[in-house]
Amino acid sequence: MRHVGKGWVMAAALFASTGVAATLPPVNAARLESTLKALSAFGAEPEGGVSRVGFSQADLDGRSYVMGLMREAGLEIRIDAAGNLFGRREGRESLPALLIGSHIDSVPHGGNYDGDVGSLGAIEVARALQGAGVSLRHPLEVVIWSDEEGGRYYLGSFGSDAAAGNLPAGIVARRDADGVPLGDWLRRMGGDPERLSEARITRGRYAGYLELHIEQGAVMERAGIPIGVVQGIVDISSRTCTAQGFANHAGTTPMDQRKDALAATSKAVLAVREEVRAEPEGHPVGTVGWIEAKPGAVNVIPGTVDFTVEIRDLDEARIARIDARIQSRLATIGAEESVQMHCTAPEVSTAAVTDPAFRAAIHAAADAAGLGAMELPSGAGHDAQNVATFAPMGMIFVPSVGGISHSPKEYTTPDAVAHGVEVLRRTVLGLDVSL
Amino acid sequence: MRHVGKGWVMAAALFASTGVAATLPPVNAARLESTLKALSAFGAEPEGGVSRVGFSQADLDGRSYVMGLMREAGLEIRIDAAGNLFGRREGRESLPALLIGSHIDSVPHGGNYDGDVGSLGAIEVARALQGAGVSLRHPLEVVIWSDEEGGRYYLGSFGSDAAAGNLPAGIVARRDADGVPLGDWLRRMGGDPERLSEARITRGRYAGYLELHIEQGAVMERAGIPIGVVQGIVDISSRTCTAQGFANHAGTTPMDQRKDALAATSKAVLAVREEVRAEPEGHPVGTVGWIEAKPGAVNVIPGTVDFTVEIRDLDEARIARIDARIQSRLATIGAEESVQMHCTAPEVSTAAVTDPAFRAAIHAAADAAGLGAMELPSGAGHDAQNVATFAPMGMIFVPSVGGISHSPKEYTTPDAVAHGVEVLRRTVLGLDVSL
Repeated sequence: MRHVGKGWVMAAALFASTGVAATLPPVNAARLESTLKALSAFGAEPEGGVSRVGFSQADLDGRSYVMGLMREAGLEIRIDAAGNLFGRREGRESLPALLIGSHIDSVPHGGNYDGDVGSLGAIEVARALQGAGVSLRHPLEVVIWSDEEGGRYYLGSFGSDAAAGNLPAGIVARRDADGVPLGDWLRRMGGDPERLSEARITRGRYAGYLELHIEQGAVMERAGIPIGVVQGIVDISSRTCTAQGFANHAGTTPMDQRKDALAATSKAVLAVREEVRAEPEGHPVGTVGWIEAKPGAVNVIPGTVDFTVEIRDLDEARIARIDARIQSRLATIGAEESVQMHCTAPEVSTAAVTDPAFRAAIHAAADAAGLGAMELPSGAGHDAQNVATFAPMGMIFVPSVGGISHSPKEYTTPDAVAHGVEVLRRTVLGLDVSL
Repeated sequence: MRHVGKGWVMAAALFASTGVAATLPPVNAARLESTLKALSAFGAEPEGGVSRVGFSQADLDGRSYVMGLMREAGLEIRIDAAGNLFGRREGRESLPALLIGSHIDSVPHGGNYDGDVGSLGAIEVARALQGAGVSLRHPLEVVIWSDEEGGRYYLGSFGSDAAAGNLPAGIVARRDADGVPLGDWLRRMGGDPERLSEARITRGRYAGYLELHIEQGAVMERAGIPIGVVQGIVDISSRTCTAQGFANHAGTTPMDQRKDALAATSKAVLAVREEVRAEPEGHPVGTVGWIEAKPGAVNVIPGTVDFTVEIRDLDEARIARIDARIQSRLATIGAEESVQMHCTAPEVSTAAVTDPAFRAAIHAAADAAGLGAMELPSGAGHDAQNVATFAPMGMIFVPSVGGISHSPKEYTTPDAVAHGVEVLRRTVLGLDVSL
């Protein structure tokens, strides 16, 4: 990636001196807001928010709406075998395209910003170029990755996993609760289950990828800074642990004769938090999100408790250190409580670091737009993580009000969205010069 | 109850001087063991133990077997409107009857000793009297209370609750999952759903009640003492509590911005145990047996956790003190964790203290049989608790191996059972003289 880095230095100089971005009109914030609102109708829930789950009718309807917007923006539409939706604007030179985009599928009972902002923001950038009659050196492609949130057929991000070549064999034969195979949905979306492997994108095909996304946390809101420059997407390590004590009568078993799996687990939950907090560097997070105590009766001492331990950080070695300390704490707790504590081996997803030149380009774009920027990790997974396997990539965050996400209460102000899209536009222009 | 107490002093004197019990043959331990084994066939589970749930075919079959044993023991059978099964042996004098017995229904996947020992032990006492040709001053009635464990239609102890007048109105119309009303089962058992209120037993009808039961704890086994003289059946206070934090993304929410309902609940679980253990007097127990964290996903910080807090002790005031300390701890934890903690009002079952004269009679009987005895509370509920509302009562415990109960692993040795039944027999003889 070194040549990209060097390229950026030149680009920043050009950017500042020529003022390319400044000569073009900014994004149309009102138009952007109205398209976001229109998209929110597909899969809208009565209580607010949206259920536009990947591979559902609402998802298909939303995609049709988005394809209409792409056509209005003069983009040439292509759907790959995995249902990923591409809209292309040709460039002046024979170069690999710049790719920008996100996803429009949601979690069940999700919000109207996760994915939508980056998807419609990317289309708005293309529309702004179209409106100004500007051709870039590079072709520009807008991508709407299919089924980023996953869940119905697959726990990963289907479309970008296909692009990265990560999908398991035979996945198209998987059936949902109604017996409908994934392959049927792919055909409805314009994909091709027989040629799924052709959705794989090889290194060199794209000059780079930019994704605008809501933060989904409250770090930027608390800092009062409108633009986030993502350092990378964190590594996730997760284990399922079990505390094995002995289920006995809550009335007849004296306090000193108990092997209470829930008491042991309670110590474990607090130990996880303590060991994560004790880490002096980075921004690790650790969570016990799921717990089940058996037999689970008011009048029976829990004999078995299962629970999950998830740790995230940008640095895999740091996660391993924290994880080792937690395992050691669990052993101590087990001995104290006469309860056996054991965990499955950790399942680890690999962190994806953003390209330094892309981070610098985003900083420069924010500066030029007069907007403050801060660097931060992404605690959530994104399609950009998969793209990092075949192209340099960068991510721009905008603040989430109250840090709320995956909820109908998810919200980012129209101004914040417009700022993010403007920085996306300026970063595209900057990278177009430098790459 | 004072006259009973005085009566006992006289009885103990008589007992020791006349040696009534010693002149009669002891219980037939081999016969008792074989009837326990035969009863265990009704509702036997392939993995061991038994599912002879009240108001089931296995329960009906077990009752038929027990009625046969009652007939063999020369008892006159009567079934009351609530399905309680009585077998009567007349006495020499016109006195209220002495009542002895327990229950033969089990929890699902329960064991072969809870209830069975006291039920068949009581029949064995009647058989021993019959075999020796002895008539007591008082009539003797053996009772098999219906549906002690509850669960299918009712959470209490159906038969003895009917005797105590505790059943809610309209209960006979309740239907199970197959749509069968409770009333149908009552008719099959020889009861009468139309006249359920007639099952109520008024004070004065019985001279007293004795129940032999397995301890269901490990206190006696640890002490190495074969006979337990129950001080009373503990009070139970239970609440359902809720920790209300905020469900948020496990990846994007920094550790210092969380309102983690599970972390708060973990502190609460440990605080419940600490406050129960901190009580200097009595033998209180406290249990968090049920917990549910929502939304319950690996990658979401738990926003809401519901859990139960149950406290048991013989002394209601002690429970109230412990409960108050726990509530105070929950408030502190809530403030520390930025999580709202609130609990439902406590549901309190009233403790039932055994009659001092009955305790003394059991001690005297154990002494005369050359068996060590210790006093202890019953942490579990029993039919005797309901009987205490209309007659003086006492309970005899025999040790449970490993303290295990409500499990196929529930076990009490044949010797321990025989010792308990022998003490029951001798206590009956003693009380027959004193009451």
